[in-house]
Amino acid sequence: MDQTQDLFFMNVALEEAKLGASEGGIPIGSVLVIDGKIVGRGHNQRVQQGDPILHGEMDCFKNAGRLSAKDYAKATIYSTLSPCDMCSGAILLYKIPRVVMAENETFKGAEDYMRSRGLEVINLDLNEAKQLMREFISKNPQLWNEDIAE
Amino acid sequence: MDQTQDLFFMNVALEEAKLGASEGGIPIGSVLVIDGKIVGRGHNQRVQQGDPILHGEMDCFKNAGRLSAKDYAKATIYSTLSPCDMCSGAILLYKIPRVVMAENETFKGAEDYMRSRGLEVINLDLNEAKQLMREFISKNPQLWNEDIAE
Repeated sequence: MDQTQDLFFMNVALEEAKLGASEGGIPIGSVLVIDGKIVGRGHNQRVQQGDPILHGEMDCFKNAGRLSAKDYAKATIYSTLSPCDMCSGAILLYKIPRVVMAENETFKGAEDYMRSRGLEVINLDLNEAKQLMREFISKNPQLWNEDIAE
Repeated sequence: MDQTQDLFFMNVALEEAKLGASEGGIPIGSVLVIDGKIVGRGHNQRVQQGDPILHGEMDCFKNAGRLSAKDYAKATIYSTLSPCDMCSGAILLYKIPRVVMAENETFKGAEDYMRSRGLEVINLDLNEAKQLMREFISKNPQLWNEDIAE
């Protein structure tokens, strides 16, 4: 997949993140793509649903519904932030071969571990995503700490 | 915590697993315990809710709701089966220091990785849990494969 396509799908993940922000939630979004088509999208639901497991990537997997191992094996997951241990674990369980993040300055998840397990992990290093998180964290430091158990 | 207590709480996790079986679901249950009290319990919801992220442990975390890092730091999570990459990742995210499983013969998850990250991981090796999974898998091999993306 070329970078134009990656930027296109990341833009959808950023839309999800902004939707989360507009709901008063933690602005992290995610998109699951198979064969060039979006099969799931979601955003962090800690505030909106009071749910500690619905990080952006998890909400995306949930919304994509039950898929076969064959489907997951062709997928790319996009996230506006470096996937944490939980989300990386879900990516590993479902053997998603390719992970694209918008940034890892705000938080660096289990990138090295995913790479050690053979996954392709790409960082697009987008200022827009960093800015979204910077604004959110400056206003909601406790909420952010809760989301990463700090 | 002594083994009598571990067996007591694991019995609750096994009740959750059996509840899942009675609903036609995958019979894996989990309990989250803090300061000797159950703060969350749950079971695999793939069939019941069509949800690919609600493994037993994840359903348990979800039902426990939003907790502080301070709470998670005192917790033990019980699972009737060795936690997979996703569930181990959630355990690592929330820095749960102690993991007790009923068995790992049916499936061995990320036990070694959790230990390498400093967690105490205990296997009670209970025949009742193995029997539950044996019966389920013999009748529903495809469903089980879907749950672990095989």
